[in-house]
Amino acid sequence: MPVTSLSGFPELLPAESFVELRVLDLLRETFELHGFAPLRTRAAEPLEHLLRKGEIDKEVYVLRRLQADDDSGDSGLGLHFDLTVPFARYVLDNAGHLEFPFRRYQIQTVWRGERPQSGRFREFTQADIDVVGRGTLAFHHDVEVARVMAEALGRLEFLPPLRLQVNNRKLVEGFARGVGATDVAAVLRAIDRLDKVPAAVVAAELRDVAGLGDEQAAACLRLADIRTADTSFVERVRGLGVGDDLLDTGLAELAAVIEGCADIRGVTVEADLRIARGLDYYTGTVFETRMAGYESLGSICSGGRYDALASDGRATYPGVGISLGVTRLLVPLLADGAVAGSRPVPSAVLVAVPGEADRAACDALAQRLRARGIATEVAASPQKFGKQIRYAERRGIPFVWFPGEPHEVKDIRSGEQVHADPDTWTPPDDDRHPGVISR
Amino acid sequence: MPVTSLSGFPELLPAESFVELRVLDLLRETFELHGFAPLRTRAAEPLEHLLRKGEIDKEVYVLRRLQADDDSGDSGLGLHFDLTVPFARYVLDNAGHLEFPFRRYQIQTVWRGERPQSGRFREFTQADIDVVGRGTLAFHHDVEVARVMAEALGRLEFLPPLRLQVNNRKLVEGFARGVGATDVAAVLRAIDRLDKVPAAVVAAELRDVAGLGDEQAAACLRLADIRTADTSFVERVRGLGVGDDLLDTGLAELAAVIEGCADIRGVTVEADLRIARGLDYYTGTVFETRMAGYESLGSICSGGRYDALASDGRATYPGVGISLGVTRLLVPLLADGAVAGSRPVPSAVLVAVPGEADRAACDALAQRLRARGIATEVAASPQKFGKQIRYAERRGIPFVWFPGEPHEVKDIRSGEQVHADPDTWTPPDDDRHPGVISR
Repeated sequence: MPVTSLSGFPELLPAESFVELRVLDLLRETFELHGFAPLRTRAAEPLEHLLRKGEIDKEVYVLRRLQADDDSGDSGLGLHFDLTVPFARYVLDNAGHLEFPFRRYQIQTVWRGERPQSGRFREFTQADIDVVGRGTLAFHHDVEVARVMAEALGRLEFLPPLRLQVNNRKLVEGFARGVGATDVAAVLRAIDRLDKVPAAVVAAELRDVAGLGDEQAAACLRLADIRTADTSFVERVRGLGVGDDLLDTGLAELAAVIEGCADIRGVTVEADLRIARGLDYYTGTVFETRMAGYESLGSICSGGRYDALASDGRATYPGVGISLGVTRLLVPLLADGAVAGSRPVPSAVLVAVPGEADRAACDALAQRLRARGIATEVAASPQKFGKQIRYAERRGIPFVWFPGEPHEVKDIRSGEQVHADPDTWTPPDDDRHPGVISR
Repeated sequence: MPVTSLSGFPELLPAESFVELRVLDLLRETFELHGFAPLRTRAAEPLEHLLRKGEIDKEVYVLRRLQADDDSGDSGLGLHFDLTVPFARYVLDNAGHLEFPFRRYQIQTVWRGERPQSGRFREFTQADIDVVGRGTLAFHHDVEVARVMAEALGRLEFLPPLRLQVNNRKLVEGFARGVGATDVAAVLRAIDRLDKVPAAVVAAELRDVAGLGDEQAAACLRLADIRTADTSFVERVRGLGVGDDLLDTGLAELAAVIEGCADIRGVTVEADLRIARGLDYYTGTVFETRMAGYESLGSICSGGRYDALASDGRATYPGVGISLGVTRLLVPLLADGAVAGSRPVPSAVLVAVPGEADRAACDALAQRLRARGIATEVAASPQKFGKQIRYAERRGIPFVWFPGEPHEVKDIRSGEQVHADPDTWTPPDDDRHPGVISR
């Protein structure tokens, strides 16, 4: 299981690293198949840029040069706490070199300067995709982003079942307006708390804080109860008898996203009208994702549409994106043993060494296997073959190769040993690379 | 060319990111073929651990929590400045879970808290391989590490010619002892300066600081002049008429490394007896690497054998490793235009959209191409086809697909347009993924 010798900074053992790499490879492959370009931004941003969005200012690590010339030593830089803020800055820095709409994925570490005792991650990996336009960005990119992430998640078949929950702020705001709410933001804030407090408390808040009457509050709660894996939510909302233009737009947009994801396999994509996302900058589609059995993690993959990812006076850059918390997702699964790596080394073959004088020949033999893409290591010392086989066992290496005339290879799980030609023998596909085992 | 909106923190444009990814993929593939396991350590280490090795203490970024409870806010943590120090700590933390000899590769960002005006990188990516043993580590791992990195470098065929220069501290120390030097360390320090100052200055230093006589100093300079791409250096050293046991060991070890790399293609591996590596912890084999035309960068890939990578009172962990400066290597080449990415998007195909009503059909078509591993994007808006073709041109996408009965696909470079079946058409291998262009 993952090791944490420094609170909040989890580290993986070698077998676990293969699980993470497998996840990242599948994400990357899916993102690139859809035309998303890889991007990596620097880890540090000027503090004033990081703190522009108010919510998170308690959680920044500031960088100080140890041997600075002045007393404070502050570099004016802080470590990024997400990948959206640096991406927005990158778009402004490089707008002249980019083609819009610009699709990028970004898989990087982020940091939050939490108190050590809080038990939360202070360093973790995120995988983000975003599409950003200059001036305008067509709505169909909301559907695209949902599809691409859903497809990527669907390929992580070793994970517990995932539900990608989609809502639309226009729908909820329009509905609130339609029932006659005057403080729409307060209505959204109250509904956003449905995950944490009983419905009765939310109802009270809708009445007392948002100023709704009993009927209005009840209608909002009925809306928040609607959850469908197809577009039948539209009819159910219509059945609540509320009319509003913005509501109509939101319903159409949300229906388009759900319809667009209808053929996705391996993950449930559903309309869930209680999803609100606390962050104020979302303006339309919003995403959250729950993992079965791990609901206490909250949403492990979130995002949405924002009308202004960035703006530089001349132009505004609207965007839509979604961010997967890779560490947040994987570390609990690895800790539970719900997923594990099949072995701690890439090697599919260990070449046994009869005597130290044979090492060069063993190396040359290993090289012939590697030339055909078979990861191979050569035994560290010419011990008795029984010991070399146990060396392979401890590493989970499935095959031991005995050089000779003829060469022989042993599957150390079955014990079967056969003659083999180093230029044609191939391990079964499943043994070629370390795999992911799920319980 | 790479952008640096914050001094010392270079960032790549999308086409350049593909060059970096290609490099990292080739490194990773080579390392794994040789049985090296992937590892990622946290970016932050306790300061006292980072500062244990004295040399670098001016260049650490200390982390301070922005909203801490006490005045200083210092977390006691700093960002790692290399991958060796955190790896040593990881080995001690996890020794009970690792099998030795333990092979790992580590590709990560490191930071140095340099003054902004120095023009040096403050954030850069390194790719390290190390083999570490518990108690002992056989010499043949020196040969292994040299071979693996040389093979990896040799696969980066788009780089200018590389020379991996190998030496052995036992050889140089034994030689100095053999000529009768009493302050061997001073001799090594003087020879290490041959790259920076004229030989006459080094000769004076050998006499005045290291206390050698004229003959002795001349012999040391003759030794430092020896450079051979085969094992003929042994005879040339013997010709200098100096005898010493440690010298003999060093000669044998260096000859074994050079011989072991004799079949490596794409990179020159040579014995270069002036290579000393300033760092005191190397005890045998040492590596440096120069890139033709970029000698001013110094060594872009360095390392060696150390008798004690780590030690925990019960056990000592000797190791041998080598570290490639990926950013240090690539950013100057990208800035010069010596290498470039072939296009800024992964997409090999743009599906043209006849009208917005056809988008769902176009998406479905794109999905058929993606299912066969062909990166495909769908045009953002249903403009005239001429405009959509120019959209592809601006992105360097080689093929535009026109849905219809029959489907047609146009190679926008040649202008050739042919009928095509979405379930069988395949782009040429070279067009499938963005490539690396070298000048």
